[in-house]
Amino acid sequence: MSCTPNGYKISILLEELKEAYGKEYTWQSVNILKNTQKEPWFVAAGANGRIPAIVDHDRGGFAVFEGMAILGYLTRRYDPDNKFSFPVDSNEYDEAEIWMAWQHGGLGPMQGQANHFLRFAKEKIPYGIQRYIGESERLYGILNTRLADRDYVVGGKFSIADINLLGWVNGSLFVGIDIEEHFPNVAKWLERCLARPGVQRGFAIPTESSFSNTAVKKAIATDPEKKKQAEETAALIKDAKEKYGYKYSSP
Amino acid sequence: MSCTPNGYKISILLEELKEAYGKEYTWQSVNILKNTQKEPWFVAAGANGRIPAIVDHDRGGFAVFEGMAILGYLTRRYDPDNKFSFPVDSNEYDEAEIWMAWQHGGLGPMQGQANHFLRFAKEKIPYGIQRYIGESERLYGILNTRLADRDYVVGGKFSIADINLLGWVNGSLFVGIDIEEHFPNVAKWLERCLARPGVQRGFAIPTESSFSNTAVKKAIATDPEKKKQAEETAALIKDAKEKYGYKYSSP
Repeated sequence: MSCTPNGYKISILLEELKEAYGKEYTWQSVNILKNTQKEPWFVAAGANGRIPAIVDHDRGGFAVFEGMAILGYLTRRYDPDNKFSFPVDSNEYDEAEIWMAWQHGGLGPMQGQANHFLRFAKEKIPYGIQRYIGESERLYGILNTRLADRDYVVGGKFSIADINLLGWVNGSLFVGIDIEEHFPNVAKWLERCLARPGVQRGFAIPTESSFSNTAVKKAIATDPEKKKQAEETAALIKDAKEKYGYKYSSP
Repeated sequence: MSCTPNGYKISILLEELKEAYGKEYTWQSVNILKNTQKEPWFVAAGANGRIPAIVDHDRGGFAVFEGMAILGYLTRRYDPDNKFSFPVDSNEYDEAEIWMAWQHGGLGPMQGQANHFLRFAKEKIPYGIQRYIGESERLYGILNTRLADRDYVVGGKFSIADINLLGWVNGSLFVGIDIEEHFPNVAKWLERCLARPGVQRGFAIPTESSFSNTAVKKAIATDPEKKKQAEETAALIKDAKEKYGYKYSSP
């Protein structure tokens, strides 16, 4: 576990399974700033050297990594009543897989790259900032359309298709994307999900993130230094978009 | 369909299913250079406006997009003997999902970004080149380790876990990654897969790619202009790596 968008998806599902079925689990926090996830004990479970990864001691130490695969595994094995998932032979199972893959290969990696170019890269490279913020916005547009006539991403109920997205969407402000202003269906969906106690508990493991939309909004409202930083980030994004003549477009 | 790494994974599976079960299909080529995939008729099936997408006319026009979701869908519905997949309750099903997600969220998007910064970006940005070539090499290292004592990625047989990777691995030279020299287990696995007639036919739909490793090697050997271009690309990568003091590392 680590307080990152991909870590939270697992703690949220585990908290929901615990509430629904009494399924207990333990977690181990990983300091990605110290590269703990590259140490042999971690790589034994997560061959890719990235979080998250789980080890199922009830099934001979079977190890699973990659966020969407962990969510699929845990529900196939430990959600017999399909409270957070769908029967394997239903169309909804296929639809959940589609939208989870859409996050796993799209919104996750692209918003991750936006984070990198905006916050973590030592050089500020407008091309990278524009490219990945622009692609993230396009993807938020797709999700906003999907949620136009739905309360949840798949099958009319809260499921792993939602959980898989929560960490990233709840970190959109950190890359300057204001869903309340531009993607209202997404904002309402996020609020709906955040009202669940299991989701709230999951977002507190190992600790609450200072990058969540709530935390960022609060910081901007109360800390003049953070407000200034947010304005500088917004200006960086605006300049990068102008430099390349970016126009928002999403089918 | 489109002659891209993500398009081929679908045509390869469809060719294998046709050979194994006589399952017929039709395909529609998409010109991504003309943004055909953003047109309403395409978006109706592929909500993300990206290839590949399928429509199942045998199941009421059910539409599936995202490469790994299409491979999962097609085998759950049309591979009853699990010739290219694994029973849903087996550990191998979980393992296939893990490695497919690993490709879908890692090797695919990262090698895709390497392609972009190396070939398609109008500016040459060493930071972007180094970042994505480096991450692609790390991922090839993970796959090389996985294949050290295995002929195929999961469960001792050719499956969708392999098909999902084929298009990208067969395009590694295009981003200057020579698997024969640096990732020999991956190179032998690719050769093993390419020996299959179904794979060969799949790689010819809609047309053979001029970016495949075979095509790139042949072009370099026979066309002095292409040879010069390859040397320029290699120099670009070398300079970018040196500029940022990159050292290969993969657990």
